[in-house]
Amino acid sequence: MKTKSESRSEGKGGHRESYFWPEPPADGMLTITGPEARHISRVMRHEVGSVIGVVDGAGGEHQVELTAVRADRVAGCVLADTKRAREPGHRVAIAQAVLKGDHLAQVCAQATELGVSRVIPFLSARTVGRLSPAKLERLRGVSLAALKSSTRTVLPTIDAPVGFGELANRAREFDQVLVAYEDETGAGLGTALKRDAESVLIVVGPEGGFEPEEIGVLKGAGAVPFSLGPRRLRAETAAIAAVTMALGLLGDLG
Amino acid sequence: MKTKSESRSEGKGGHRESYFWPEPPADGMLTITGPEARHISRVMRHEVGSVIGVVDGAGGEHQVELTAVRADRVAGCVLADTKRAREPGHRVAIAQAVLKGDHLAQVCAQATELGVSRVIPFLSARTVGRLSPAKLERLRGVSLAALKSSTRTVLPTIDAPVGFGELANRAREFDQVLVAYEDETGAGLGTALKRDAESVLIVVGPEGGFEPEEIGVLKGAGAVPFSLGPRRLRAETAAIAAVTMALGLLGDLG
Repeated sequence: MKTKSESRSEGKGGHRESYFWPEPPADGMLTITGPEARHISRVMRHEVGSVIGVVDGAGGEHQVELTAVRADRVAGCVLADTKRAREPGHRVAIAQAVLKGDHLAQVCAQATELGVSRVIPFLSARTVGRLSPAKLERLRGVSLAALKSSTRTVLPTIDAPVGFGELANRAREFDQVLVAYEDETGAGLGTALKRDAESVLIVVGPEGGFEPEEIGVLKGAGAVPFSLGPRRLRAETAAIAAVTMALGLLGDLG
Repeated sequence: MKTKSESRSEGKGGHRESYFWPEPPADGMLTITGPEARHISRVMRHEVGSVIGVVDGAGGEHQVELTAVRADRVAGCVLADTKRAREPGHRVAIAQAVLKGDHLAQVCAQATELGVSRVIPFLSARTVGRLSPAKLERLRGVSLAALKSSTRTVLPTIDAPVGFGELANRAREFDQVLVAYEDETGAGLGTALKRDAESVLIVVGPEGGFEPEEIGVLKGAGAVPFSLGPRRLRAETAAIAAVTMALGLLGDLG
């Protein structure tokens, strides 16, 4: 029989809600303090004996049976551990030009849900707006919330914003780099994507698109331009569409 | 040489911004009044001699050379007509359960950009929130704005919200009906989608998902459940991911 708190902790589809605690267990016991302890004890109202799933953001997930529940401190013994449960088999990352308003937060949230490994915000010639340290922290918070709602176990890295030259450097860390370019009338992502790539970086420009010279710099770093078709997509739609297509083509979306 | 107003009217990637006027030309002349005339004359500052692209939302697009420009009335002669330029070759529609807050507007905007033919909002057992006539009008406005920004020529139909029984009826209008179901651990969209379907309806539930009985009703109407993978996607992310994958697999996204 399910206890009341266990029923509460089950999300739709029978998955439990995940909790986040980056520190490892000690002697088979996990202790959680601060706001996450309050969330577990007061908001989700778990009690002694409840079994909760706790992810460390680096792929580890612990099933924890609670042995002590206080508002500011929750502790329990680890019943089982898994690694990288529900994670994609490939590292798909997105380099997204800084966007106006809240659009970069939307990209971070949805890309995290879908399964990206990393978000690299960058500045380019036509970038409007900027990414302050406070905004960057907010993006990381948005991504953490998406990790929990999506029941992921790996928290994507959200890099501090980089200039265009540094973007070209980071591109070299990936097996394949693909850049969404609306002047590209040729290959779609289905043609451009190498199916044996283990890591893929998708680059999406700002609202005003790339300068032709910027495409040249990215090509020089090995990037392959691709088209998302004849319709003009907003940057945040292009980002999510490209991430979806790449993960789908690599077999990581069902 | 480009006139100032022509340069202004060119969006990124060299596409011009589209204007919307549903009425047909008469004797080779198109006359636009009201807010769209004001937008063309005052905001975009087109002048006599400018050539603008005007779409009728039903697939027609006219290249119009302006012969008269006033704040409340713009007229010009039609130089050329095209049909269904930049439109997908398939009708991909989305039936989306009514969502809380602004999420249905986000789905309408992004689905329009990507190329859907129709959005069918519906109510189900776990639907939270409602879709008032005023909100429905707003969704149609959001979709029209997305048509213009994406340079589409066909304006998607946004149906008035329907109950679950009527949704099952409308499903019969499509060659294939696919329902995103997170308890589905089997086929992904790549397996479930019939490549020879000319029209596809994708059904996505509310935040809390479907009741198992609802999946039964949809299956009875011929729907095929599919999985978007082991991560839990928010409804609006699932909707855009599924639309992207379907259009991509059918060859309509580059």
